[in-house]
Amino acid sequence: MRLRPSARAELEQALAAMPHRLVWSQQMSNNVHTDARSDAALAEADVAFGQPDPRQVMAEQRLRWLAVTAAGYTRYDFEAFKETLRARGAAMTNASSVFADPCAQHVLAMMLALNRGLLEAHATQIGERAWSYVEQRYACRLLTGQTVVLLGYGAIGRRLAELLEPFGMTLYAVRRQTRSEVGVRIVPEEKLSSVLPLADHVVNVLPDNESTRHYLNARRLACLRPGARLYNVGRGATVDQAALIAAAREGRLGAAYLDVMEPEPLPPEHALWDTPNIHITPHIAGGMGDQDEKLVRHFLANLAAWEKGGALTDRVV
Amino acid sequence: MRLRPSARAELEQALAAMPHRLVWSQQMSNNVHTDARSDAALAEADVAFGQPDPRQVMAEQRLRWLAVTAAGYTRYDFEAFKETLRARGAAMTNASSVFADPCAQHVLAMMLALNRGLLEAHATQIGERAWSYVEQRYACRLLTGQTVVLLGYGAIGRRLAELLEPFGMTLYAVRRQTRSEVGVRIVPEEKLSSVLPLADHVVNVLPDNESTRHYLNARRLACLRPGARLYNVGRGATVDQAALIAAAREGRLGAAYLDVMEPEPLPPEHALWDTPNIHITPHIAGGMGDQDEKLVRHFLANLAAWEKGGALTDRVV
Repeated sequence: MRLRPSARAELEQALAAMPHRLVWSQQMSNNVHTDARSDAALAEADVAFGQPDPRQVMAEQRLRWLAVTAAGYTRYDFEAFKETLRARGAAMTNASSVFADPCAQHVLAMMLALNRGLLEAHATQIGERAWSYVEQRYACRLLTGQTVVLLGYGAIGRRLAELLEPFGMTLYAVRRQTRSEVGVRIVPEEKLSSVLPLADHVVNVLPDNESTRHYLNARRLACLRPGARLYNVGRGATVDQAALIAAAREGRLGAAYLDVMEPEPLPPEHALWDTPNIHITPHIAGGMGDQDEKLVRHFLANLAAWEKGGALTDRVV
Repeated sequence: MRLRPSARAELEQALAAMPHRLVWSQQMSNNVHTDARSDAALAEADVAFGQPDPRQVMAEQRLRWLAVTAAGYTRYDFEAFKETLRARGAAMTNASSVFADPCAQHVLAMMLALNRGLLEAHATQIGERAWSYVEQRYACRLLTGQTVVLLGYGAIGRRLAELLEPFGMTLYAVRRQTRSEVGVRIVPEEKLSSVLPLADHVVNVLPDNESTRHYLNARRLACLRPGARLYNVGRGATVDQAALIAAAREGRLGAAYLDVMEPEPLPPEHALWDTPNIHITPHIAGGMGDQDEKLVRHFLANLAAWEKGGALTDRVV
């Protein structure tokens, strides 16, 4: 990714005071969905900070640590890649602790916006300027007492659970590791169909990998109670979008609020844009004004740990 | 107000089991801004549950308790009214504990919606369907570390402070009673101009009375830092709207999110509707699907206390 100038300066300044040489790639892009190509700079690196081509990372024997500048690491999430790093004694980190707070706040923003009718009110303001006081007032909902089912439970889910604590909600989280967590009932995957019907809100934070493709399929969407709301801040591929559109069109789904989808960017003619009760933000859930500075500081703190042989934060491999 | 049938039934059923006679007014309206006229039913009442004409309440010697079905009680908030009730040994309650949670959730919804760019994203979705990923992502903000100044601090402010606790924000509250509170720095009114410049978010929950009219005037709005956001869930009269529109047009204000304004309903030709960065919801902050049932239960719990000579919840006089 292309760092903003102030973050780039912060990285350069910090590394100038350390026994490291900084080499910039000439291929940086702000589009996380563009696959990186082979990069000459990577051959010189012991440490890579960014999202380089996974095949080249596997080939570069010198590379000892890949610090991915995102929470999602789909393109590195296959066994051959991870096995190659492990065999070499190399590490991979992601930036999930950087993006957990904005993603959790984004999900809560979506939940509250739907509960309080803010999108309808905004459409009315830029549209007919009607004043439907009684209808909108009784259509408002409280999070208090409602039930959330989280699909996946890592850094984002944990932060969301903290933010939801004062609302007095019931939280379930479905994930493979069934060790217990504070404030949320962990549910093994085989019990998914028994908790989906309890949800007022289903929050999907699943990564995209072989086991999650179209995880929310027609059968699972059919488990939801009428009026339930789905949020996706994981990856678009984890939802069967044709089934989602059908459920929304038939009124079986209360609403879906998608920050990720397939494809991205979503082309203007795509059916998701105008399916009733499907709302879209353009992959901004992790966004914040100082995102790049936070990524640099996260990397520098890990670099200090790495030099001392200490434990890396957000280590994936 | 006109109770929904299920709430009306709940009230009738509960009172049928008590030694009270229930008399329905023939003049109920859902518009909180319509002044009630003189009502024959009120002459028979020891207790009034609703929002009757204040002059008639003053005249009806029999009336011992007025249970107002709203958090705001502007039309009863003058000294002659309160003195008349006191002299008669009569009480007045409002419903602030019913509306504190929805109002606080509504404010948080507005704060997060502005921080996460949800309104712009919705306008894009129903408009040109652009995909401005980079711009919107870096425009996103975190509540974490931001500063809130509350104007007025009662039930709504206290609930909002609870909801904001996990975000790690700095909270100031300006009010006349300067006794301290947990989690918020209470600021006396004479220090207002020293805390306004610190605010990322100013939350106005002031009632409308003689001392609050145009409380947020041009001079106080000029104290705000550029980009600050104002929320009004108090009463419209507490803001000098002409000064607000000027501040928004000149780009001195980040945004204003108004749930209350003058007049209500806001006529379609009013300048507030299309002033840049002014957002409107139609007086729905206190709304929730079961509002009427909650009002009835709040009243019945107070009625049980009243019969035993116990303390009334949300007693104002």
